[in-house]
Amino acid sequence: MLEDKNQERTSLESLGEFGLINHLTKNFKITKTSTIKGIGDDAAVLDFKDKKVVVSTDLLVENVHFDLSYMPLKHLGYKAVMVNLSDIYAMNAKATQITVSIAVSNRFPLEALEELYAGIKTATDKYKVDLIGGDTTSSTKGMLISITAIGEANEEDIVYRTGAKPKDLLVVTGDLGGAYMGLQILEREKEVFKVNPNNQPDLEPYSYIVERQLKPEARKDIPELLKELGVHPTSMIDISDGLSSEILHLCENSKVGINLYEDKIPLDPTVISTCEEFNLDSTTVALSGGEDYELLFTIDQKEFPKIKGNPNFSVVGHTTEENEGAFLISRNNSKIPITAQGWNSLAKA
Amino acid sequence: MLEDKNQERTSLESLGEFGLINHLTKNFKITKTSTIKGIGDDAAVLDFKDKKVVVSTDLLVENVHFDLSYMPLKHLGYKAVMVNLSDIYAMNAKATQITVSIAVSNRFPLEALEELYAGIKTATDKYKVDLIGGDTTSSTKGMLISITAIGEANEEDIVYRTGAKPKDLLVVTGDLGGAYMGLQILEREKEVFKVNPNNQPDLEPYSYIVERQLKPEARKDIPELLKELGVHPTSMIDISDGLSSEILHLCENSKVGINLYEDKIPLDPTVISTCEEFNLDSTTVALSGGEDYELLFTIDQKEFPKIKGNPNFSVVGHTTEENEGAFLISRNNSKIPITAQGWNSLAKA
Repeated sequence: MLEDKNQERTSLESLGEFGLINHLTKNFKITKTSTIKGIGDDAAVLDFKDKKVVVSTDLLVENVHFDLSYMPLKHLGYKAVMVNLSDIYAMNAKATQITVSIAVSNRFPLEALEELYAGIKTATDKYKVDLIGGDTTSSTKGMLISITAIGEANEEDIVYRTGAKPKDLLVVTGDLGGAYMGLQILEREKEVFKVNPNNQPDLEPYSYIVERQLKPEARKDIPELLKELGVHPTSMIDISDGLSSEILHLCENSKVGINLYEDKIPLDPTVISTCEEFNLDSTTVALSGGEDYELLFTIDQKEFPKIKGNPNFSVVGHTTEENEGAFLISRNNSKIPITAQGWNSLAKA
Repeated sequence: MLEDKNQERTSLESLGEFGLINHLTKNFKITKTSTIKGIGDDAAVLDFKDKKVVVSTDLLVENVHFDLSYMPLKHLGYKAVMVNLSDIYAMNAKATQITVSIAVSNRFPLEALEELYAGIKTATDKYKVDLIGGDTTSSTKGMLISITAIGEANEEDIVYRTGAKPKDLLVVTGDLGGAYMGLQILEREKEVFKVNPNNQPDLEPYSYIVERQLKPEARKDIPELLKELGVHPTSMIDISDGLSSEILHLCENSKVGINLYEDKIPLDPTVISTCEEFNLDSTTVALSGGEDYELLFTIDQKEFPKIKGNPNFSVVGHTTEENEGAFLISRNNSKIPITAQGWNSLAKA
């Protein structure tokens, strides 16, 4: 859709060397007191005073991480920011700045990049982070987006993957599997469209899961909510690659085992019904689906009253001694070893 | 050369999801007191205490920014770090950390990435910066490297592009045009190789300029030297795109004009002789060549005695009132407007 021939097209070359980045970033305003200098010099200058600085980076590659045939560019810009902010929130920190670098081939006109940046701007406005730098360059094929997110936190608030101890409770925010099932819907519609371009897909029944795929929200509210509730997780990680993969990371980093209870995994009704439609097991989808950008954390048992009944949280299991390993306790009470089957595009540091 | 069929090849897939990044980064040690947590969590955690934080990012794309037919991967890794550190030094800051994200197609075996990371490690060891994170993913075509560099500085030491005033002296470090002429040599040898693969090129006479292209050094020493000499530049920028382009940036950002004297532009004898060999004008090469990663700065005239005779510095001109514009004063004393002809791959924020 970005390459709609009816649109007016402006070639990127026509803007000149520095005109492009100025054009794309001119509407971005600096709002953080920690941003002293944003775009426009060799480097941005930031001031975090007595706060610790948190830094994370992600690379999104066309046809590896996203498919522009069903991902509108505006959504892509928004989602690319979410993917990165999610890592900052997973440290129990506040996101403050991002840099955005983009490589694009000549097939993209200026209008396409404007759409992408409109999505990035919607995200930075809503999540209150400053765009402070980046690089825009040509690629020989396709589009690639590299974002670095920066955040701040008091030292005592930061939560690593390493702090869980045996008998902690395992908690997940929101619900899982939606982004993956949304992707199944979009891929099915793409196939239908190939056969019959005049077919008007009815995505309405699937709107929740399609939105989870196309316009995920990072859990900015969770570090704030945890603070409000006086809960300090012992460990935390974001669920970008699927629950099983993240559980194994927590186990490895914290030197614990985990029992995960199948019947406790939070699933939206749309996920359950769509799994039935596709003849997929909803537990497998939640375990391996990825891209939900929820948070997974552990808390000391005595913190349980603080989160009990809170609709943002589901207690899905508990940690055990390391040598006990990581298991799914199924509905029929069998114990199944958890293996990493998360969505995989090589690796992430 | 990276795809030498005689080498042992290990496919990237065989390492598993997180094995790759662990394998590539296992020899990197954390050395900075400002790095609290490096690779291994959702984000790195840094502590700059009362220092300001400086952040810059660059994207390098195969066949846009580098050509692997003559750029060994180890050199590429080294150079990619230099390109980014140069931006930090151009703020008169100290580089402290980098993140490195890489997208590669299946044509690269593990051994190729090991070479690349060996170059990155040589750079981080020599320049004393910590690798604190990154992302490694697949691409549908070629290789792309995205690096974010982080540095620190006292607020009063930071130099922006904006502080030059009329009648400041314009100073350049090192010499210019070498990287561009090194590229001409390498491209000529590539053409010769295509015709006769058995030809053994004699690069010895060109070793200085070939090294300027393949293994440039960022000017870490300059902020240190300026401090030692008690010189605080009024403005500074790194010369990545060619002298003319950087001069225009300083003019625009500082609202000044500039007179640049052709006979003052520092050129290595190898650049001069190679320009003659290629029938190129050495001034044009210095103005437009790019990739020298020297620093360009302005100082108040009264600081001149502090840098006079120092072999690291060449006074190449002076600033004027903004309405006077930017000019090259040629050897025969004619005044030629400076236009941006720097090396261009879209834009950089």
